[in-house]
Amino acid sequence: MTKFDAHLTELDTPAAIVDVQRMQRNIERMQRCTDGFGVRFRPHVKTTKCTPIVRAQLAAGGRGITVSTLKEATQFHADGIGDILYAVGIVPSKLPQVLALRRRGCDLKIIADSVASASAIAEFGRAQREVFEVWIEVDTDGHRSGVEPDGAALLEVARTLHGNSTRLGGVMAHAGSSYDLDTPEELAAMAEQERAGCVLAAERLRANGLPCPVVSVGSTPTALSAVGLDRVTEVRAGVYVFFDLVMHNVGVCTMNDIAMSVLTTVIGHQIDKGWAIVDAGWMAMSRDRGTEKQRRDFGYGQVCSLDGTVQEGYAVRGANQEHGIVWREGERDSDIAARFPLGSRLRILPNHACATGAQFPEYHALDERGLTRWSRLHGW
Amino acid sequence: MTKFDAHLTELDTPAAIVDVQRMQRNIERMQRCTDGFGVRFRPHVKTTKCTPIVRAQLAAGGRGITVSTLKEATQFHADGIGDILYAVGIVPSKLPQVLALRRRGCDLKIIADSVASASAIAEFGRAQREVFEVWIEVDTDGHRSGVEPDGAALLEVARTLHGNSTRLGGVMAHAGSSYDLDTPEELAAMAEQERAGCVLAAERLRANGLPCPVVSVGSTPTALSAVGLDRVTEVRAGVYVFFDLVMHNVGVCTMNDIAMSVLTTVIGHQIDKGWAIVDAGWMAMSRDRGTEKQRRDFGYGQVCSLDGTVQEGYAVRGANQEHGIVWREGERDSDIAARFPLGSRLRILPNHACATGAQFPEYHALDERGLTRWSRLHGW
Repeated sequence: MTKFDAHLTELDTPAAIVDVQRMQRNIERMQRCTDGFGVRFRPHVKTTKCTPIVRAQLAAGGRGITVSTLKEATQFHADGIGDILYAVGIVPSKLPQVLALRRRGCDLKIIADSVASASAIAEFGRAQREVFEVWIEVDTDGHRSGVEPDGAALLEVARTLHGNSTRLGGVMAHAGSSYDLDTPEELAAMAEQERAGCVLAAERLRANGLPCPVVSVGSTPTALSAVGLDRVTEVRAGVYVFFDLVMHNVGVCTMNDIAMSVLTTVIGHQIDKGWAIVDAGWMAMSRDRGTEKQRRDFGYGQVCSLDGTVQEGYAVRGANQEHGIVWREGERDSDIAARFPLGSRLRILPNHACATGAQFPEYHALDERGLTRWSRLHGW
Repeated sequence: MTKFDAHLTELDTPAAIVDVQRMQRNIERMQRCTDGFGVRFRPHVKTTKCTPIVRAQLAAGGRGITVSTLKEATQFHADGIGDILYAVGIVPSKLPQVLALRRRGCDLKIIADSVASASAIAEFGRAQREVFEVWIEVDTDGHRSGVEPDGAALLEVARTLHGNSTRLGGVMAHAGSSYDLDTPEELAAMAEQERAGCVLAAERLRANGLPCPVVSVGSTPTALSAVGLDRVTEVRAGVYVFFDLVMHNVGVCTMNDIAMSVLTTVIGHQIDKGWAIVDAGWMAMSRDRGTEKQRRDFGYGQVCSLDGTVQEGYAVRGANQEHGIVWREGERDSDIAARFPLGSRLRILPNHACATGAQFPEYHALDERGLTRWSRLHGW
């Protein structure tokens, strides 16, 4: 880890720290990976919701962004980003916001996975004389939304969209169930399943005389595990920018790639139990227990020293709102108060960077020049 | 539930809704309960971090507040509240903030549970010529921080504090393990254990010539389950103001007492699976799965109709960042799309009101006059 820990002794705790070197390395790794496949890369900014980070992703070669809320779309369009995919199924009540953004010049694309939704977009577009660009969400792993790549609904939705009042922009898939895997073979197979399903959907559209310029796939695990991305046009991924303990357990990063940590102070001990109490409770770490069912359970987060050295076996294993309880796996540490003295500072690697980041109004970006505050969006 | 659902059709979703009638009923119930014991009630404002709600708690008879962060102390002191207990163990790096608040006239009390912490406060106080009021945290149920009521550390900490540079204000305990119980008998026993331990600590101090004006106990379950509070001077509780599904399972409220819900829109279906997809994912509900190990698991939250009617068996059982997946317990609902049509709105009762509230920058307070925005604090 970057050895700039002297800067971390003055901050109020808890605080969310971004190791800029690691982040930049992660950004470049994903860009190289997708460049290698000859496909566009469209980062998903829901992980950070933070302008300087999104700028770094685009500077590295990202083309356009993916967002999870219209608030993100509004903010990042105001920041000068034109090409935005809102990757959550649209409903009529959100169309006026989409319209307003498009009228302000934002090339905002929306998604649909039902005739009901597609019809509502078409109807609203006709009434407003606006041609919405819509992509069809395809379900390649049964984990959430989307039409089946080989089902009748795909063509019905496409035919509803392909008209005067909407533009059928393509198909997109997200193999979210890749988060449940942890071997390279399974991950490569899931990446191929995501690719093949999305490509099948695109080819069925084309075979039926329907346009499908974009074939968009992605999740961090599948993007980094794909063997080939034949006939895919773009990849989307988000959490790779920071990585986290869930991704470590999935096997697509090492502990030393994790670029976000929570700076915390030791506020007490229960020496008889081998506990250190820290001021990073669940309000700081989030309630995400994503590693609970994985091959290694890190509680609410892996403990590191201030300079980032992993403290093997020590994790935040219990949490109340503003109290984290740290203990060693296995044998009780009777020297816990000497190891982590009152007032000393630790850094906790999170289970899930998207969830932990959301607990903070800002990141503190740490590089060789020191610390910079980077604000992030909160809410909708 | 209050029948003002017409006001809820215009809001952007997801949104956090406060049913003001229910909230007021909950506030009055706790105040009556503590009045009945003849003790002061000091609400814990960490649940809501929201000025209009805290004002309602004080208007009903609350005296002083409890906070979980110095940000809350700063905000609520600026709002005119003088008597504040910061109920998380203090560390030296936070003392300058405490000093600044006290110098601005805030009667801010802090807590300690070790000689190391007590000494640091005393030393800082001497250097700054400030007499800090400190309460000793007592551990009555082994769940977190605090000294044992019958141990040597209690007196050592007290003697460190009782000097020229600090004022020993009392003892406080929080039986957080009451959240793990679910029968009136167990809860009453835990309330008595919390009371007896805290009173024992106070009496040992007095027997040793040390002052102990305040004997402060509390958690929502123990406060509402105590049979008597002999020799206690004040009660603290927080989540009672909204209640939630965890408290429902503990047995101290009914579903119809839960005063906070997340307004959400149905954004899609997977009809073959009996799923409705809503725009309240874990970013809205939080990752809190507090009911998972209780007698009834509500997933990420109980589904209600827009007017608040509980939809028995339907819960948000899966969640991604901005997608919640609703299905019925037991038999698949093949009519899910007719029951919860695309674009229709639902209200989701949360597992844990403190965690869900923190996901939102504001509440929308709903009463017979309509909706009012109530902002809440975020971060530290």
